[in-house]
Amino acid sequence: MSYPIHPSHTDLIWMNRALDLAQLGRVSTRPNPAVGCVIINRGQVVGEGWHQQAGQPHAEVLALRQAAEHAKDATAYVTLEPCSHFGKTPPCCNALIAAGVKRVVIAMTDPNPLVSGRGIAALGEAGIEVTQNVAMARAKALNAGFVMRMQTGRPLVSLKLATSLDAKVALANGESQWITNELARHQGHLLRAQHCAIVTGIDSVIVDDPQLTVRVSDDDLNKQGWSSQRRVEPFKVVLDSHLRLPLTAKLCAQPDKLIVYTTQTALTKQASKYAQLLDLGVKVNVVAQTIHARVELIEVLNHLAAHYQCNNVMIEAGGTLAGAMFNQQLVDEVHWFSAPIVLGPDAQSALNLLPLQHLEQATHFKLQAQQLLGDNFYRRYQCIKA
Amino acid sequence: MSYPIHPSHTDLIWMNRALDLAQLGRVSTRPNPAVGCVIINRGQVVGEGWHQQAGQPHAEVLALRQAAEHAKDATAYVTLEPCSHFGKTPPCCNALIAAGVKRVVIAMTDPNPLVSGRGIAALGEAGIEVTQNVAMARAKALNAGFVMRMQTGRPLVSLKLATSLDAKVALANGESQWITNELARHQGHLLRAQHCAIVTGIDSVIVDDPQLTVRVSDDDLNKQGWSSQRRVEPFKVVLDSHLRLPLTAKLCAQPDKLIVYTTQTALTKQASKYAQLLDLGVKVNVVAQTIHARVELIEVLNHLAAHYQCNNVMIEAGGTLAGAMFNQQLVDEVHWFSAPIVLGPDAQSALNLLPLQHLEQATHFKLQAQQLLGDNFYRRYQCIKA
Repeated sequence: MSYPIHPSHTDLIWMNRALDLAQLGRVSTRPNPAVGCVIINRGQVVGEGWHQQAGQPHAEVLALRQAAEHAKDATAYVTLEPCSHFGKTPPCCNALIAAGVKRVVIAMTDPNPLVSGRGIAALGEAGIEVTQNVAMARAKALNAGFVMRMQTGRPLVSLKLATSLDAKVALANGESQWITNELARHQGHLLRAQHCAIVTGIDSVIVDDPQLTVRVSDDDLNKQGWSSQRRVEPFKVVLDSHLRLPLTAKLCAQPDKLIVYTTQTALTKQASKYAQLLDLGVKVNVVAQTIHARVELIEVLNHLAAHYQCNNVMIEAGGTLAGAMFNQQLVDEVHWFSAPIVLGPDAQSALNLLPLQHLEQATHFKLQAQQLLGDNFYRRYQCIKA
Repeated sequence: MSYPIHPSHTDLIWMNRALDLAQLGRVSTRPNPAVGCVIINRGQVVGEGWHQQAGQPHAEVLALRQAAEHAKDATAYVTLEPCSHFGKTPPCCNALIAAGVKRVVIAMTDPNPLVSGRGIAALGEAGIEVTQNVAMARAKALNAGFVMRMQTGRPLVSLKLATSLDAKVALANGESQWITNELARHQGHLLRAQHCAIVTGIDSVIVDDPQLTVRVSDDDLNKQGWSSQRRVEPFKVVLDSHLRLPLTAKLCAQPDKLIVYTTQTALTKQASKYAQLLDLGVKVNVVAQTIHARVELIEVLNHLAAHYQCNNVMIEAGGTLAGAMFNQQLVDEVHWFSAPIVLGPDAQSALNLLPLQHLEQATHFKLQAQQLLGDNFYRRYQCIKA
């Protein structure tokens, strides 16, 4: 028995296949978006491709290469509008047109306002039928950071919290290891793998001397549906307004991955520390400072997007920095791990917010996902600014 | 086609039916336990009964009455060991024996150490086959408060929290209505209905002037599988060490349900207030006091069990009283409602715990149940003392 299948249903099936392929590039394509492509001719897959790394061929090109002459009169499913401009590689629109593709199905348009729609226009002018917005929500979620950077000039900001049930991260005396369990910490590493940069404060560096590395195996990444080939280690970003970073900090052992933000004031006072860090190969940047001689957080974020092409960054910091990011409404989503204990009001808070005058001023957290990790809880929230 | 059914499977099915019946008495049997009974003869239900109210017939008697002559050679499923002593009603063991029941299946033994096992012994002596511990976990959970009172002399203590994600109950300036949503508040009323008493502190009474009543319809109760007939309104208990309770408080409008605990010191200083409260019909009790002239919490709990037969009580109070209960390890379970907002460290805490010196000292919360209520969260925890 055969059932008639609605065309849009077929489109969804193939687009989801293309999105699965795109996802393989989750931890390697940055700063580029993850993109997948499937080419279908008479109901058969004739070509598949996904973008693996900046500078390497785009998904469409790989899929067309595999399809060869079968691309003629075929339908191409692409998770992102094909590019129409010359970047590190020639425009994909040209390749699709040259291959004689009959129809192109696109999950989302290019989020870059300067080029958005141009690829679709070019395909249309060449007489190719274009269908848009198929599985758009999944496509946007896959490249949420890239979309944010293209549209606002700053990265998507995640905040990781690992707390007790009353949002505490340490006892008053500082004791804190470990509040959350091993499953939660493992999930934390998987989160790091998906971010372009991990941002922390100098106090955390001085107190904890963290590595902030992604400590998961290739196999762990593959289990998530991501290719571990050419996996990229995130940048580690230290906000160090007074240039107090010890040269012996573990983070300095991988200086090419270390980005420091400081102030002009610190640079003047700590000229030799500055020189020593540069000697090590650390990237030290000066940004505008607040009246309290702290780095301006929005300037840091804008700089990370503009100079290091960071699509998304994750804050892993103490209550002061986390609270400041929050107070300035710079946090887009929260990854919250909680252990089933209560530490009481004297313990150290995960989020040192400014006192609120009215309940309506509170940022609302919109639950996106939740998971039990042994006796710990993981919840992902989107922040809805008040 | 017929399948052979393992006897213990049959026993579980009928015992669960008996437990469903028992549950009908959830909000009416106190201070008695909820008990159900099903009588089966040749695979057929010949009698069913459940205990509705103290002083009324026990479940076994009602089921036997319905079964009449069919009780002979039948199997009786009882959720609690039948009594063998004369209380407000004659012993159920005698009735089962007199009816000629052949076998009795029991979910749990009587938790009262003074009589536990006596019913089983009496049935055995009469030549009746007895099977124990069928669906015991559910039976114990159904009457957890009664078990606690019988075994320890104090009620089971629940703590209700309605907080932000960082366990705050109000802004620093006191603004607090409403943090949690309507679904959460409705569930809070269903929790009240299941408790013998709601305990609060005098500060909450002065600031909020609460009623602490069960504001759910009979229909709401029935939907939970509980009979609404003869529903019992919980006692309201106010801990008022200095006898500051205003005579105009809403709680004083139902004085027969109001229990006040105070200290000898207050009684001496506030003799006229004491007289006025007694005149209203309020039950005012004096218990031992701490060196800070506060009522001793454990004395209050013991008194509620001994004098008012409270099986379970729910604390609905501010951070000071809730924290004190917690610090003294008197909280057995927590009903935690949380709204998806964060109020920050300056806001008022739900639990003013004493500062901890080590993480290992923290009470662990064991998750028992969870539910999304719109955008609010409900979680029930068992407290595992450190």
